[in-house]
Amino acid sequence: MLPKLNVWLEKDGNVVLSQWRIRLLEAIGETGSISAAAEKLGVPYRRAWEKVQEIEAGLGEKVVETAVGGLHGGGARLTEAGRRAIAQFHAFADGLDAEVERRYRQTFGA
Amino acid sequence: MLPKLNVWLEKDGNVVLSQWRIRLLEAIGETGSISAAAEKLGVPYRRAWEKVQEIEAGLGEKVVETAVGGLHGGGARLTEAGRRAIAQFHAFADGLDAEVERRYRQTFGA
Repeated sequence: MLPKLNVWLEKDGNVVLSQWRIRLLEAIGETGSISAAAEKLGVPYRRAWEKVQEIEAGLGEKVVETAVGGLHGGGARLTEAGRRAIAQFHAFADGLDAEVERRYRQTFGA
Repeated sequence: MLPKLNVWLEKDGNVVLSQWRIRLLEAIGETGSISAAAEKLGVPYRRAWEKVQEIEAGLGEKVVETAVGGLHGGGARLTEAGRRAIAQFHAFADGLDAEVERRYRQTFGA
């Protein structure tokens, strides 16, 4: 068997940040575009856009700045709040996998 | 925001034990019946029965002994392996919520 873990942050019962959502923000930062980030993560543009809206509604601030128009239909980049959310979530979640693995070995002796 | 956590154990990509499945086994132990446990957890009998099968397939041993027939259509009780799975999973998972809460306060400062 293998131990598995999922961690996320909720507000009023709605997901705000999750491991997947952090990967989405990182992909937006890397590609400079919500549509390219959506393609990279294998989801429709609309789904990626909605998740960004949900993150911003939960945090109460913009995490992505978008520019309309231009040669490639505008671009997107992370705000300072977006970069901070990524860093904080990593500090929160990274290392938990190792902790879960340690507990699994201790208790199931595998 | 509130930090949330889910932990489970998989084998070959299939869930074997989870927090919900442990509650199911505990309910079977308390009620002496899969149907009563299913009612307690608010799921159809068939779903509860299938989850028991999946647990047993993953662990490679019986976790529930059933008696066919009788006044109330037979009953069910936990095997030694079933009781061990419950105890091991608690030792594995209990306390992780507190660890996640601690990490959340440290990183998001809430």
